[in-house]
Amino acid sequence: MIINFVSGNPGKVREISDIIKNSISNIEIRQLDMDLPEYQGDSEFIVIKKLEEARKNAGNIEGAILVEDSSLLLNVYKGLPGPYIKYFLKAVGPEGIYKMVTPYEDHTATAQCIMGLQLPNDEPRLFTGKTEGEIVKPRGNNGFGYDTCFQINSINKTYGEITEQEKNEISHRMKATKLMIEFLKNL
Amino acid sequence: MIINFVSGNPGKVREISDIIKNSISNIEIRQLDMDLPEYQGDSEFIVIKKLEEARKNAGNIEGAILVEDSSLLLNVYKGLPGPYIKYFLKAVGPEGIYKMVTPYEDHTATAQCIMGLQLPNDEPRLFTGKTEGEIVKPRGNNGFGYDTCFQINSINKTYGEITEQEKNEISHRMKATKLMIEFLKNL
Repeated sequence: MIINFVSGNPGKVREISDIIKNSISNIEIRQLDMDLPEYQGDSEFIVIKKLEEARKNAGNIEGAILVEDSSLLLNVYKGLPGPYIKYFLKAVGPEGIYKMVTPYEDHTATAQCIMGLQLPNDEPRLFTGKTEGEIVKPRGNNGFGYDTCFQINSINKTYGEITEQEKNEISHRMKATKLMIEFLKNL
Repeated sequence: MIINFVSGNPGKVREISDIIKNSISNIEIRQLDMDLPEYQGDSEFIVIKKLEEARKNAGNIEGAILVEDSSLLLNVYKGLPGPYIKYFLKAVGPEGIYKMVTPYEDHTATAQCIMGLQLPNDEPRLFTGKTEGEIVKPRGNNGFGYDTCFQINSINKTYGEITEQEKNEISHRMKATKLMIEFLKNL
C-alpha cells in the first residue's frame, strides 16, 4: 500500500518512514509536498480540515493520504502555543519557548502528534500520541523544531540529546504512528 | 447603505458603529453573528479568507459585508501572537501577555486592526490601522481584550485607562475605520 504523507519537512517524513518500515512490510511512504492553507482551532479540527484540503488537491492520487499536526502544549498557557508552535519556533526558536515559561514555576508541557489518515472510501482516522515533559533551556544538537527545549519526563533528556533511533522508540510521533500501524495491520 | 459586520463581540460592533455614526450619515451597521472557521496565516490573508467565507454563509443578504481582524504584534516575538492573540487572552489574560515579554528588555508592540469590506460587485477592500505602544502590567478597568496591558506611546496610558470616547479618537480600530469611511465617502 502507498501512503502519501503531506509534509514539507523531510525530517518528519524520514522519522515516520523509519518507524513504519520496522513494523509492517508492504507499506511505502511517499512525501507529498503541497502547501496547504491551515485552519485555526484545536488540533483535531486542524487535522480533519487538512485531510479534506489534501484530498481535494491531490486529485486521483494512488493510495492513502496522511497528514500530521505536531503541537507543543505548555500547561501554564493552557495548551498554547499548541498548533501555532511552528510560528513561535520560527520567531523565537527553542530558547524563546523556554523564555515564555520562565516567569512561571510550572514548566510542564505535552508534546503531541496527531496523524490523520484517509484511506480510499473510508472515514478520516485520527491517531494521537502524547509525551509528557518539561520546557528547559535548550540542550543537545539533534532533532528539529522544539526538540532541544523539550525534556522528556521518563528519561530526563531532551529530544535534542538522544539519537534519531532512540527518539523513534519513545517520541510522541512514534506513539501516534504505532497506533496507526495497529490500525493498518487489522485492516 | 447597510453594512453587515461579522462579529461575535458587541463591544467591537459598538465601537465601530459609534465611529461611523459621527462621520458619515446614511450608513447602518448591523451585527452579523456567525461562527466562521478562520485560517492560519498573516492578518491580510486571514481577513480575505474570512470575507470569502462570510459571503458564502450570508447568502443573499442586503448590503455590504465587513469583517475585522484585530491582532497584537509583540516585537520581541517578531509579530506574534499576532492574529492568535485571542487564544492567548483566553488562556492567560492581559497579565499573561505582560509575563510573555518580561524576560526581554524590549516590550514594544503594535496594536493592529484590519477591516475587510466587501461591497456587492466589488473586489475585497482592506483598511489597516496601527497604534504603537508597549506591553505593561495591566492598568485600568475599561475596554476589552488586551486593552489593559497595551500602553499607547502618544499618551502613556493603556486603553484600559481611557474612556470609550477617548479610545474612539485614537485607537487602531478607529484608524482602520476612518480609512474605510474615506473610501465610502468617495464611492
